[in-house]
Amino acid sequence: MQDALIRLTAHWAGHGCLVAQPMNTEVGAGTLNPSTALRVLGPEPWRVAYTEPSVRPDDSRYGDNPNRLQTHTQFQVILKPEPGDAQELYLASLAALGVDLRAHDVRFVEDDWASPALGAWGLGWEVWLDGLEITQFTYFQQSGGLTLDPVSVEITYGMERIMMALQGVSHFTGIAYAPGIGYGEAFGQAEYEMSRYYLDDAGIGTNRELFEAYAAEARRMLDARLPVPAHSQVLKCSHAFNVLDARGAIGTTERARAFARMRGLAHEVAELWVERRAELGHPLGDAASGAAPGAPEVGPAAEPGLPEASGSAAFALEIGVEELPPDEVARTAADVAERLMAALEAAGLFTDASSLDSYATPRRIIAVVSGLEPREPDAEQVVKGPRLAAAYDADGAPARALLGFARGQRIEVADVRKVTVGGGEYAGYVRTVVGRPVARVLAELVPALVGGLRAGKNMRWNAPGLSFARPIRWVLALLDGHEVPCAVPGLAAGRATRVHRTADEPLVPVPDAASLIPVLRAHGIEPDPARRRTRIVEDAASLARHHKGTIDFAGEQALVEEIVNLVEEPVAVLGSFDEKYLGLPEEILTTVMRKHQRYLPVRGSTGRLLPHFVTVANGECDHDAVRAGNEAVLRARYEDASFFFQQDLRSTPEEIKRGLDRLTFTDRLGSMADRSARIRAIAAELAGRVALTGEEEAVVRRAAELAKFDLASSMVIELPGLAGTMAREYARRAGEDEAVALALHEMELPRSAGDAVPAGIAGALLGAADRLDLLAGLFAVGSAPTGSSDPFGLRRAALALTAILRAVPRLAPVTVGDGLAVAARHQPVEVAPDALAGARRFVARRLEQNLLDEGHAVRVVRAVLPHADAPAHAERAAADLATLLRSPRFEKLTTALQRVLRIVPDGTRAAYDAALFQEPAERRLHEAYSRVRDELPGRPSLPEFSGAASALADPIDAYFDDVMVMDEDPALRANRLGFLAAVRDLVGGVLGWREIT
Amino acid sequence: MQDALIRLTAHWAGHGCLVAQPMNTEVGAGTLNPSTALRVLGPEPWRVAYTEPSVRPDDSRYGDNPNRLQTHTQFQVILKPEPGDAQELYLASLAALGVDLRAHDVRFVEDDWASPALGAWGLGWEVWLDGLEITQFTYFQQSGGLTLDPVSVEITYGMERIMMALQGVSHFTGIAYAPGIGYGEAFGQAEYEMSRYYLDDAGIGTNRELFEAYAAEARRMLDARLPVPAHSQVLKCSHAFNVLDARGAIGTTERARAFARMRGLAHEVAELWVERRAELGHPLGDAASGAAPGAPEVGPAAEPGLPEASGSAAFALEIGVEELPPDEVARTAADVAERLMAALEAAGLFTDASSLDSYATPRRIIAVVSGLEPREPDAEQVVKGPRLAAAYDADGAPARALLGFARGQRIEVADVRKVTVGGGEYAGYVRTVVGRPVARVLAELVPALVGGLRAGKNMRWNAPGLSFARPIRWVLALLDGHEVPCAVPGLAAGRATRVHRTADEPLVPVPDAASLIPVLRAHGIEPDPARRRTRIVEDAASLARHHKGTIDFAGEQALVEEIVNLVEEPVAVLGSFDEKYLGLPEEILTTVMRKHQRYLPVRGSTGRLLPHFVTVANGECDHDAVRAGNEAVLRARYEDASFFFQQDLRSTPEEIKRGLDRLTFTDRLGSMADRSARIRAIAAELAGRVALTGEEEAVVRRAAELAKFDLASSMVIELPGLAGTMAREYARRAGEDEAVALALHEMELPRSAGDAVPAGIAGALLGAADRLDLLAGLFAVGSAPTGSSDPFGLRRAALALTAILRAVPRLAPVTVGDGLAVAARHQPVEVAPDALAGARRFVARRLEQNLLDEGHAVRVVRAVLPHADAPAHAERAAADLATLLRSPRFEKLTTALQRVLRIVPDGTRAAYDAALFQEPAERRLHEAYSRVRDELPGRPSLPEFSGAASALADPIDAYFDDVMVMDEDPALRANRLGFLAAVRDLVGGVLGWREIT
Repeated sequence: MQDALIRLTAHWAGHGCLVAQPMNTEVGAGTLNPSTALRVLGPEPWRVAYTEPSVRPDDSRYGDNPNRLQTHTQFQVILKPEPGDAQELYLASLAALGVDLRAHDVRFVEDDWASPALGAWGLGWEVWLDGLEITQFTYFQQSGGLTLDPVSVEITYGMERIMMALQGVSHFTGIAYAPGIGYGEAFGQAEYEMSRYYLDDAGIGTNRELFEAYAAEARRMLDARLPVPAHSQVLKCSHAFNVLDARGAIGTTERARAFARMRGLAHEVAELWVERRAELGHPLGDAASGAAPGAPEVGPAAEPGLPEASGSAAFALEIGVEELPPDEVARTAADVAERLMAALEAAGLFTDASSLDSYATPRRIIAVVSGLEPREPDAEQVVKGPRLAAAYDADGAPARALLGFARGQRIEVADVRKVTVGGGEYAGYVRTVVGRPVARVLAELVPALVGGLRAGKNMRWNAPGLSFARPIRWVLALLDGHEVPCAVPGLAAGRATRVHRTADEPLVPVPDAASLIPVLRAHGIEPDPARRRTRIVEDAASLARHHKGTIDFAGEQALVEEIVNLVEEPVAVLGSFDEKYLGLPEEILTTVMRKHQRYLPVRGSTGRLLPHFVTVANGECDHDAVRAGNEAVLRARYEDASFFFQQDLRSTPEEIKRGLDRLTFTDRLGSMADRSARIRAIAAELAGRVALTGEEEAVVRRAAELAKFDLASSMVIELPGLAGTMAREYARRAGEDEAVALALHEMELPRSAGDAVPAGIAGALLGAADRLDLLAGLFAVGSAPTGSSDPFGLRRAALALTAILRAVPRLAPVTVGDGLAVAARHQPVEVAPDALAGARRFVARRLEQNLLDEGHAVRVVRAVLPHADAPAHAERAAADLATLLRSPRFEKLTTALQRVLRIVPDGTRAAYDAALFQEPAERRLHEAYSRVRDELPGRPSLPEFSGAASALADPIDAYFDDVMVMDEDPALRANRLGFLAAVRDLVGGVLGWREIT
Repeated sequence: MQDALIRLTAHWAGHGCLVAQPMNTEVGAGTLNPSTALRVLGPEPWRVAYTEPSVRPDDSRYGDNPNRLQTHTQFQVILKPEPGDAQELYLASLAALGVDLRAHDVRFVEDDWASPALGAWGLGWEVWLDGLEITQFTYFQQSGGLTLDPVSVEITYGMERIMMALQGVSHFTGIAYAPGIGYGEAFGQAEYEMSRYYLDDAGIGTNRELFEAYAAEARRMLDARLPVPAHSQVLKCSHAFNVLDARGAIGTTERARAFARMRGLAHEVAELWVERRAELGHPLGDAASGAAPGAPEVGPAAEPGLPEASGSAAFALEIGVEELPPDEVARTAADVAERLMAALEAAGLFTDASSLDSYATPRRIIAVVSGLEPREPDAEQVVKGPRLAAAYDADGAPARALLGFARGQRIEVADVRKVTVGGGEYAGYVRTVVGRPVARVLAELVPALVGGLRAGKNMRWNAPGLSFARPIRWVLALLDGHEVPCAVPGLAAGRATRVHRTADEPLVPVPDAASLIPVLRAHGIEPDPARRRTRIVEDAASLARHHKGTIDFAGEQALVEEIVNLVEEPVAVLGSFDEKYLGLPEEILTTVMRKHQRYLPVRGSTGRLLPHFVTVANGECDHDAVRAGNEAVLRARYEDASFFFQQDLRSTPEEIKRGLDRLTFTDRLGSMADRSARIRAIAAELAGRVALTGEEEAVVRRAAELAKFDLASSMVIELPGLAGTMAREYARRAGEDEAVALALHEMELPRSAGDAVPAGIAGALLGAADRLDLLAGLFAVGSAPTGSSDPFGLRRAALALTAILRAVPRLAPVTVGDGLAVAARHQPVEVAPDALAGARRFVARRLEQNLLDEGHAVRVVRAVLPHADAPAHAERAAADLATLLRSPRFEKLTTALQRVLRIVPDGTRAAYDAALFQEPAERRLHEAYSRVRDELPGRPSLPEFSGAASALADPIDAYFDDVMVMDEDPALRANRLGFLAAVRDLVGGVLGWREIT
């Protein structure tokens, strides 16, 4: 391993990196070293490489876990400004380490990075070597809360993982560290003892004192304008916090507060550093003043002669990017195709005879257009001169105004004719605007297209003015056989496309537009996502068949789609794992496969998992090597999971639940055990409002006793996504009633929008109680979400609450307001009425958003919002309303009712004396009103209401035609308004009628 | 510079070193990294190399000082067990750095290392490159208070210094760190800001809290048996201490207490580590179980046929060592010669015809003997059998006893003869013991000689059973042309000597004993110290002459002697320095030259310094390169000194003195300013007992006002040895009276045994007051020295006090007891009578030791000790007594007086009635007594006393012959004893008569 560090050091030193030393205080990552944290700030160029033993107290495992260490070795590289070829430099470093890049599957898999404690974020990838994450590769966008300019590339190698893969060992202690000395021999004792310190023995009181002392010292150094010592103290602060965290001494609120404090200090450090460097005159220079080292030199291209197309032309556009996040690939391709086509159509170049084909891979967005017109059609432009009346004198000779106009337009007076503009007559002329050649149009269009690319999350890199999901590196634009000149700063342009980075010649010239796709295919790249999908499905299915298995492609649709956009040349490889792991719950196995590894699970005829998986490599490789690597990764992950699972099974659910005591929820709202108790109490109270069978009652009672116990299990602490799933599993194995086990699982549903909701009443009750507790408690202590910050996931909780209430008809007696009030009574703190109202409004707003997201029209959603307290009702109303809005009868009703609602002032009481009615229309409406009132059921559905109330429409219209409501006689007027208020009250609760416009 | 670190890393990795990372908490040296501090403990082999940015808050200089940084870069290597060729490996690493070892003067200069805070020490060298200390090279003997077995070699490179030398820059900021980036650009800001933190801004309260927190955490981890985290906390403790120290917040007592605490913790960590490694079964193995890697393989040599000498033989013995401390060279050579000669004489091999020549260099001790007898003389041995009477039966036939004797001795009965032993007659025989050949004698003698080598400070290395100042590496023992076999484990033996390490062939075979010296000379090595001395003196004088200068060899005798023993082949090189530095006080310049650099100062005809120096390189070199290097070193040192000097001169002595406030003396005894005030008060009081002229009084008063002010000057803080010297200089420059300036200097004398004492009365008074204050105060607060620990230098203070009192006759009215009592009255704490008595005894013991060291006989010293309170008197008495003891008259007097003293019981009062005398002898003695009593002056010198009191001798003898003192009549007896008690009182105060045996 030390040899590997020496080689990496030499490699990067050879690429101009200063070799720095690890930080002389504990840091959780190389990023925190001032060589990164401070140096990425400001305009000075900087290239650095260093080893950083990174201390993460929370990862302490006494040296038992094969992959996890309290101190792991990072090798960190910063290239500032990003040089444009950092990926290639990185791959060369792997080669220097002895990795055969052609044999192995090296991939750049989307992984964005953010450190709230540092006020830092960036976009980039984790680099996979045969499925193993070996490196974090990030384009640093912000640090210390400051936007970075220039942008740095940060490359962080996880040395232990790399060495385990290269040396083929399955536990870090087995790594050969130095000749004759193993990693375990050299560091095993320290790993054990420091784990003991961090997990069991560190003084909590002492470390709290240390945290305060360091923070105070940082504060003083900032005041003294000394960013370097201040930064060092912030790092010490952060380590003390991490120690406390590993000791389980940090509650959610304390965490948020500590983070805010550290982030604030880090931000001040960053600002001060930038100031001080400016004061020092930027000793290392200014990156902006020179060309970025190593960046492809692309000035605005000297404009060559534009190619002329004759007859119909073909155009190929390829925008080359670094690996896009999978969900941006198709979106971007569609966007490019649409904008390109629109622009060509607008220019009259794209006609019915034209066609556009769109392609996309993670590294390229392609549009190929055929049948383009060679040039824009000519156009006529009317140029208006002086009024005709003033253009010629009495003799018909040109007046001064006309002569001036002609001179200004550089035309002969003889060319002037009469033109009519806006009904007026003028002297003027018609100019023929000659259509531009297609090449000229494209030369302007392409830079605009590229510059207009935007993604969900965008970044900057060393290309001024561009901003996209990942750096755009090249543009190929060919009009038939000619290059279309397009100058975009920071981008390579020409006729070269780029193929696999491992190819002998990664740059390949393309002879003409029509050849682009064939050329790519000839080099193994399949630009068509559909074809890639087919290949993945066919190859994976075939591999599975060889092992008597199948793949549930319908169930794995989202995963397949992700894979399609992760590779340019899908090569399916089947791997296997030890059957013993099949003893683990299936959810564990598939969660790990899908979420962590993007493997397709292989199932047998009965649908049960087989001990195989299919991974899809990017391009041809040594299948055995890739298989072995991926199998090792999965084995390690399953070994971990198995360890936790077995550990959990040694305890009963009750025993596991005791651990909730040690999990702080928030300072003022107590531990997770307190929260579990509250959920139980709230659920019991809500259960009283729902008619339950005795059996159901027992299930609710028992499940409530165990509520959330699995949060304290090792497995859920490790894989939080399995909360509920593990509760069900452990409950079953502990011999709990199946209904109880199910309820424990279902109470965690839905986990996200679109997820399943509880099927049983017990799970629904507990699930609702859970979210009500969360909302009532956190609104009470002032932790409502603000802006984009929602540390407790209250938005998700509100959505889940409404989803449950919508999905479970038997919960109809429980309204949001009612439920929150119940939950409020069980909080350990007082819940002010304002807070409760706030929570209720918050839930209503979520429901509103939810309905909008589901495609309901804004007016529909607004109209049903009065029912937000009963989301099921609101949902039904929305659906009904959408239908009714198509009916002329309902429209008539709506218009009529709106007339009523508009005229009745707010606050008018419904009180009238029918005897005072004077007009027949009044009496007719009163009759209709009385009939409808009597016919309507207690809480009518919208169609019911509409069916009954439609009888009001004509009488209302007649009423307003015949009756002067605002009569001069105040008594008469009041009586009429009082009556209309009664109509209002009859209909007002049904819908927000005035929203229906 | 980073390239240099990469090369060093590669070099040592290539020699089996594990490459470790710097410690992730601030450390003052690479030694503290657990890769050294813990790994050197216990039996496990270990080789490691790492870079360690070492943080020394006290060295903070805001980046201004060219050589001093708060963080400097160490490159650290540990070889455990020491491999036997570490020096060679080290030199190869310098070559790998690009150092031309033949052009430059690389030397190993004695520098032992000890860290009280770590309970660690070792012997070794600082390595000089052209006079610049670039590396610390240590054989680690103890760490954490534990003796190390095996011994490790620690090599610590000072990278900034090395790079400055290699790159020829004069300020660390000028070092090229990485391509295109200078050290100053990369680290300048951090250097400034961390200096600000450490010197000006670090929170003193906060760091005190941190110290306590870390110490407590270390304590808890020790209790939890976790040495690794405990060690980490001890390091944090140490750094917090260093920060406080740099902030000037640590007093002497606090320092001692903190050190004791850290040392205690470090010791426990070390013990615990050793225990834990044993419990873990020593994962890295046991160095003792395999051969030391790289150590020359020398088992007990298979004994070859011993060479036979015919006629007189020559023998050459060379004991090869790593560079000895200079003061061990001659001593060891004399010891070897003496022991060798004694053994050869005892064996009868060394006769009047033989001769022995002794030679020595730092790397070899040589004895060449010629004219040896070829073998020991034969000897006759009488073997005693049965008593003659029992040997033969009546028939004269051999009795059983005789037959048994003969059988036992394997002789014929016929060979038995009569032998006389101790007057008795026995049957026996005379055996002729044939003398052993000289080779056999030498083969036994040489290992004993080598094994018996001992120095003032001894170390162990990887050679079992040996212990010496530095490792012994080879033994050459030739008898004429033959190798004398001598088996010493761990040593190379044979006919090869070793010449300069830079030679093409560093091992050179020697044909025969007589050739050893010529062979060495042929390879440039001069084994004869006298010749080296001559060469140094001649060459240096000649170089000086070329620059119109001379060298004061008489004054530089000690330095020349040191240089003689620092080199094997003296090559004098003259260097120069900028004349501007001659503006500095000469003591500064020469102190730096002599103490730091071992340069000979060059003076002009008037004795004034010239801007030149002579350095003596070891062996031929590129004179220009060596000159340039040494000049650069001296320039840097003078630049430093100049900076401090100029800084000091900006303030008056009074202003400088204000700084004493900030120098804590001890917690209870206040600051150095308090101490200065006490010295002033004590001196004033003592001055009252000494007859001073008005002028003298004024001088004492003024000097006392300024006493010790220079301790607060930058120069003395930097070079504490210049205390007093700088006071004189600054006082002069500030226009103080010359006598005042001299007094300020002299009050610091003597600095060590044998140093000059104050010539003037003012300096003497202040000097005495200074030491009296120190003794009274520290004994009062219980800080008397214990065992070998004397942190406040009280032994030196007591010696200085007696030296002053002995040397300055005018101080006779001041006794030790009196002085201490005066000093006690001025202490801020109460001085208990016990404490005062303890201090007085302590001074007396020092005087006793002092007199013994000066060669006085034990009985003499004991006899004069009653005068210890007046050291001058005691000294004179000792000298007189030594003379008198040779006089029979005095002996007679002594014997007589001892009779008196013996018979008078302790506590007997001198009271008698002369009328009761009965015997004439009584009356005669009474007369003699009365006469002597009347004749003796008040405080007689010993000769005076002896002259007068001799008259008592005869009367006393007669008295005891004639008078029965212990008469049966109690009254008579009492009267006689009362009279003798009067005699006792007359003589008892003069000497401790009973000690004269």
